[in-house]
Amino acid sequence: MSIRTSLCDLFDIEHPVLLAPMAGVSGGALAAAVSQAGGLGLIGGGYGDVDWLAREFDVAGDTRIGVGFITWSLARQPYLLDLTLERSPAALMLSFGDFQPFLPRIREGKTKLIVQVQTLDQAREAVGAGVDAIVAQGAEAGGHGGARATLPFVPAVVDIAKGIPVIAAGGIADGRGLAAALALGASGVLCGTGFFASNESLASDNAKQAALCGSGDNTERSSVFDMARGLDWPDDWNLRTMRNAFTHQWSEDIEGLRQNLAEEQVRFEAAWAADDTDIAAVIVGEAADLIRVIEPAQVTLHGMISQAEDRLRHISRIIEPNSRG
Amino acid sequence: MSIRTSLCDLFDIEHPVLLAPMAGVSGGALAAAVSQAGGLGLIGGGYGDVDWLAREFDVAGDTRIGVGFITWSLARQPYLLDLTLERSPAALMLSFGDFQPFLPRIREGKTKLIVQVQTLDQAREAVGAGVDAIVAQGAEAGGHGGARATLPFVPAVVDIAKGIPVIAAGGIADGRGLAAALALGASGVLCGTGFFASNESLASDNAKQAALCGSGDNTERSSVFDMARGLDWPDDWNLRTMRNAFTHQWSEDIEGLRQNLAEEQVRFEAAWAADDTDIAAVIVGEAADLIRVIEPAQVTLHGMISQAEDRLRHISRIIEPNSRG
Repeated sequence: MSIRTSLCDLFDIEHPVLLAPMAGVSGGALAAAVSQAGGLGLIGGGYGDVDWLAREFDVAGDTRIGVGFITWSLARQPYLLDLTLERSPAALMLSFGDFQPFLPRIREGKTKLIVQVQTLDQAREAVGAGVDAIVAQGAEAGGHGGARATLPFVPAVVDIAKGIPVIAAGGIADGRGLAAALALGASGVLCGTGFFASNESLASDNAKQAALCGSGDNTERSSVFDMARGLDWPDDWNLRTMRNAFTHQWSEDIEGLRQNLAEEQVRFEAAWAADDTDIAAVIVGEAADLIRVIEPAQVTLHGMISQAEDRLRHISRIIEPNSRG
Repeated sequence: MSIRTSLCDLFDIEHPVLLAPMAGVSGGALAAAVSQAGGLGLIGGGYGDVDWLAREFDVAGDTRIGVGFITWSLARQPYLLDLTLERSPAALMLSFGDFQPFLPRIREGKTKLIVQVQTLDQAREAVGAGVDAIVAQGAEAGGHGGARATLPFVPAVVDIAKGIPVIAAGGIADGRGLAAALALGASGVLCGTGFFASNESLASDNAKQAALCGSGDNTERSSVFDMARGLDWPDDWNLRTMRNAFTHQWSEDIEGLRQNLAEEQVRFEAAWAADDTDIAAVIVGEAADLIRVIEPAQVTLHGMISQAEDRLRHISRIIEPNSRG
């Protein structure tokens, strides 16, 4: 059982599957589980809680993992980069903002730099900077993202990547998505939603259940939860989540939320503490349709590889009917 | 050179590629060219101009083609269905609205019914009605569409389709997209943008140039052109086009457009007549990045098949390194 691409060589991994660094969800246990299964797990550095990050690195122990940061947030706490590089992660992924100021420091070590992009201009900048890999993220992804869709965006990025491995992200949670990404010219995939409900995920029990019961039809992009959490995200990106009572109330009335922010923040924080997913955010993408059970990340990952192989074998028979008798 | 799927058997065609019935663009010449190249061309029935439709059927001549209608528009002019079925098209595609009232009349003949869907509920209804094929359309498509993205939507539709062939649409304009669609479990693809700039397309010269020079990064969904054209589209769907001066002015200010509608409609119609793409709509999707030249539709289609075969052969070598030496 094996699908080897240039990504496997780049990161010295068996399977071209990376865990998306979901803030508050991709901790050390999940990252380590994905790495131990033959992929590469990325801890979600999120908004830079030093103690949380140190603890999750410790949880991962000796397992080779990577870490991902929200670039504009990292720029406010640049010391996090030093703390991170001291751990010598296999990869550092930067998303959402200007990665250039961090390049020289990262280049001092052996940690590979992955830059996630949502537009072709961002991809051109990453190519020009000679990053090690580019994640081309479609807007169907859960969490923060832009406006392009994975299927047409990935080949357009591949066409300008000058041989830098392109990793497809957004909407990929099973072997069909992996096979499709490879068909598009990607060297591998980055999956968030697919591991959201893994045993090792730090998502709450109710959030996992909501994701498993949810449908991609019932997700949407909005800025309501960023506002409720007091996060001043740049306008270029917003957050895909499951729809719930909170998005129904506010996603079409951001100004109303702003005017009622003090009390709505209290309500949101109470819901978060109580694991009330009618109000708290369940941050998954359109691939919610494709996840079905809570299981070890290893089972999910190996299932993806196996299903991708099956799909690819099936369609290679379609194109070569004569040579297969 | 051949990729045979259940779609080829259903429509008795050589290649599993359908021309999207783009209103005002997919006329008889383009539909016939796609069919003669081994796919299936669908004339764009659009908003039901009887004389236009009759003429384009005549242009296609004896070539086996299909036709597509905007369902809610057809409901206002149901006699168009009789005029169409008299021509015995190979397929009738209904999109955007309730197809059920038309089912009995279509079932009287041999014309296959294709229903295009943008949500899983719509897909379930089409499956329940026993339609002949389902187009699962992602929002990256040019023209009217919904909110789901092709890559995660197609496998979710396949999972509920009970064996009815699923056709992927949205973002597919080359062989990589075709190969990816097959990997996702689709039986074929429906392409609009990929044929927008074909020699045989009825798009204007300037519109073709704008599409070829354009990028998926510079398209967006809005309702500005529907309003400018006086088309009262249901809220469930809006229109993806290239961005231009008209969308920059109005897409964030629909109420302003409404208040200035009389003069803006005059301006829009003048621009349309003058082929001024700064104001007139260039209706293509995110796959604009993947189209490069004005060429015969046959060249495009055969290039897609050839590239898809190359991609699939390449990745089937990735998964079976040992058996290939």
